[in-house]
Amino acid sequence: MHALQDLYPDDFAHCFGCGRLNPRGHHIRAEWQAGEGVGSFTPPPDQIALPGFVYGGLLASLVDCHAMATAAGASMVADGQTPGVDPTPRFVTASLQVDYLRPTPLGSALALRGRPVEVGTRKVIVEVTISAGGQDCVRGRVVAVKMPSSMRAEG
Amino acid sequence: MHALQDLYPDDFAHCFGCGRLNPRGHHIRAEWQAGEGVGSFTPPPDQIALPGFVYGGLLASLVDCHAMATAAGASMVADGQTPGVDPTPRFVTASLQVDYLRPTPLGSALALRGRPVEVGTRKVIVEVTISAGGQDCVRGRVVAVKMPSSMRAEG
Repeated sequence: MHALQDLYPDDFAHCFGCGRLNPRGHHIRAEWQAGEGVGSFTPPPDQIALPGFVYGGLLASLVDCHAMATAAGASMVADGQTPGVDPTPRFVTASLQVDYLRPTPLGSALALRGRPVEVGTRKVIVEVTISAGGQDCVRGRVVAVKMPSSMRAEG
Repeated sequence: MHALQDLYPDDFAHCFGCGRLNPRGHHIRAEWQAGEGVGSFTPPPDQIALPGFVYGGLLASLVDCHAMATAAGASMVADGQTPGVDPTPRFVTASLQVDYLRPTPLGSALALRGRPVEVGTRKVIVEVTISAGGQDCVRGRVVAVKMPSSMRAEG
């Protein structure tokens, strides 16, 4: 079983958040477990909002990339494919809602959980939680759409 | 006239997005002009979503930090202070809504515009647009709140 993001096609594996081919990126990863996307991420020490707390922009990035992977997994299941084994289709973000429930402490692993709540042929809606030490710190709701052909690089 | 973010107090100037004291951060900056926050940001070339397009996590970060600066500016005006001259109060993000209207092209400067739409004593709501070449690519709506005392580092 591979991480979902590690099975994005080479041409679409440069995302700063989750692309395995972006050498300076975050390399956010998730596995497909029991109908959900599940991952873990430990923020680097410079990803600060205020001293001691994780930068909200990074948290939004985690919600975003984790939701795209979860949307892809849900879409694969609907299509009879196996997430983590078959190639992962690339989704892009139409809209991102992030609620910061409480300050997220810096310095430990964060647990990412993505739950598909609406799975259409083109659009998937995913709810994401980010928790630290068992306590939810961030809640997200993301609308993912299958990558439009207009975003394919030419040549 | 200074950038709003350059006048955050030293203790709260380490934000990865906009803190002048975070050596590896994005250093997002905005000025206060005619009742709005106005800024420009050129994404580094590795901030990729798909080849040729800006990473959505960075765009969410731009919306976030730009909204915090705009909220601070609006709050200062309401308090009779001068944004860009007096110290900038630190706001934190309660919620962040980002709509990706179209793919944002990588390689040129993006224009940031923040408009305060509701200015309370503790809470400010800001609408943000990010545009490239005169075309809006991203629209955000952010709820900012004055930094709670629980986020002050001890000692």
